Amino acid sequence: MMKKISAFAPATIANFSVGFDVLGLALDSIGDTVEVVLNNETENKIKEIVGGSDLPTNIEKNCCSVVIRKMQERLDDFRGVDIRIKKGFKSGSGLGSSSASSAAAAYAYNELIGSPFSEQELVAFAAEGERVACGAAHADNVAPAIMGGLVLVRAHDPIDVISLPIPKNLYAILLFPDVKINTADSREVMNKNISLDKACSQWANLGAFISSLYQNDLELLSKSMQDFVAEPVRSLFIPKFQALKKAALENKALGFGISGSGPSVFALASSKASAQTIQKALLDQFEGSSVKTMSFIESLDGNQGARIIESF
Amino acid sequence: MMKKISAFAPATIANFSVGFDVLGLALDSIGDTVEVVLNNETENKIKEIVGGSDLPTNIEKNCCSVVIRKMQERLDDFRGVDIRIKKGFKSGSGLGSSSASSAAAAYAYNELIGSPFSEQELVAFAAEGERVACGAAHADNVAPAIMGGLVLVRAHDPIDVISLPIPKNLYAILLFPDVKINTADSREVMNKNISLDKACSQWANLGAFISSLYQNDLELLSKSMQDFVAEPVRSLFIPKFQALKKAALENKALGFGISGSGPSVFALASSKASAQTIQKALLDQFEGSSVKTMSFIESLDGNQGARIIESF
Repeated sequence: MMKKISAFAPATIANFSVGFDVLGLALDSIGDTVEVVLNNETENKIKEIVGGSDLPTNIEKNCCSVVIRKMQERLDDFRGVDIRIKKGFKSGSGLGSSSASSAAAAYAYNELIGSPFSEQELVAFAAEGERVACGAAHADNVAPAIMGGLVLVRAHDPIDVISLPIPKNLYAILLFPDVKINTADSREVMNKNISLDKACSQWANLGAFISSLYQNDLELLSKSMQDFVAEPVRSLFIPKFQALKKAALENKALGFGISGSGPSVFALASSKASAQTIQKALLDQFEGSSVKTMSFIESLDGNQGARIIESF
Repeated sequence: MMKKISAFAPATIANFSVGFDVLGLALDSIGDTVEVVLNNETENKIKEIVGGSDLPTNIEKNCCSVVIRKMQERLDDFRGVDIRIKKGFKSGSGLGSSSASSAAAAYAYNELIGSPFSEQELVAFAAEGERVACGAAHADNVAPAIMGGLVLVRAHDPIDVISLPIPKNLYAILLFPDVKINTADSREVMNKNISLDKACSQWANLGAFISSLYQNDLELLSKSMQDFVAEPVRSLFIPKFQALKKAALENKALGFGISGSGPSVFALASSKASAQTIQKALLDQFEGSSVKTMSFIESLDGNQGARIIESF
């Protein structure tokens, strides 16, 4: 029998409001599955993409095969694989769609060949999938997709990522308004420069946010969840953003922000009941709207990252 | 007998390399003393400035009287004071000279009138001294000068400051090359904008640095002590900066950077012996130089901020 491994990697909230390009949180409810099977050939093949008919099957362009190729280049013997990908959520949602696939591919292939690579190395390989999918080898989605929990990407060259503690009993409310935003476009609208004043405010709040995590200080966490960088620009592309933010904060959300480059938004709540109230308030904003929405609530206690699953 | 209070407040290292405009560390060896005495008059008076003949005695321009005036404006009954100031170190050193005076003044006056103000309020008042002394109400020197230890300034309006933990057994090596740099000039040379890439690197490292403090992770602390913002510009004004940095890091300094806007520089060491080795390596760079230097080493365990002292 041919050796076959399937891995699941979750959707992720990059930036997490206060940590543009450096913070990412692993979700648990949704994600992608990648199956790899040794094919005894000298090249990899994309055999199937379930739920992603718009994604490339060309091995030079598909993020999964690119990630696996990068791993193979670091090994002495080339072992080609047939790859099957099952998308658990839409690309362009702002929930790290390509990253979930890249992370699952890196995790599955590593397991298939006897786990020669460390977790940090897998993050670096998976980031190469981001390079083909959205033009830059960012790690703020792939790092939590592999490692789970909340992750800070300190540096990219070489990759250096830090797992952060998360206060207990927090809940994330996700809301995906189904409008198309392309990640590359959304990067384009960002200014290449920011004022030093804004930058200082951003790092002051990120510093405070990280302190709040270690101190279990929800008041400080809430005050510090501010985005001076991406939100002022990217929020313009998200339907009803200001109304959603207002509704979340009026209903005691600890924080509210854009997930990645949007259009998904998220709120943070200090209990399940609070999360349900906030979710209702968010969905109410789309009452009678033509925009379709998808929403879920999940606990942030112990969210895993990539893992091996029984079958594709 | 007229009621008389003297307070001491220490020199401080603002920015601390990785935290431009938001981090500050209290020192202990040097600082300023401010004495206040109720004068039963309707105005404050600067009676004496010991060791600071260049400092203004005009109560609208002296940072101590400005701070005290701001406190008086918040109280129902005006109680004028005679003020004496003893400078413990040179202004223009980059060690928070005006801040030490402002902090001592705020602390002394608060004690004199029965401590109506909280520590955070004193920080806000002392920051008003910075406004007259260097043009902006920055709190990264006055906050540690009042609170002691290592402080993060999250926000200025209203002031929100966070005391950070410091790993045990760390030592700071201070070196002041006695050349004149004006703080306002040094602010001028800073660009008003920075690239988003640099900003992201800066906040990624500040986040990692703060994480390292809570985790007692000296390796991470050392990696994250990087300054992409001020050092590239301000280091040009500091004699032998690159040689000093190289000497410090080659001698196992955990970090090296500019104190405030310079010209003082500091290194961080993980033991007293290491600190002594680093200090010697730094001072060796000035062997035969015409630049006079002042240097000291101090433990970072339990550095207090402002405090009442027996006598002026």
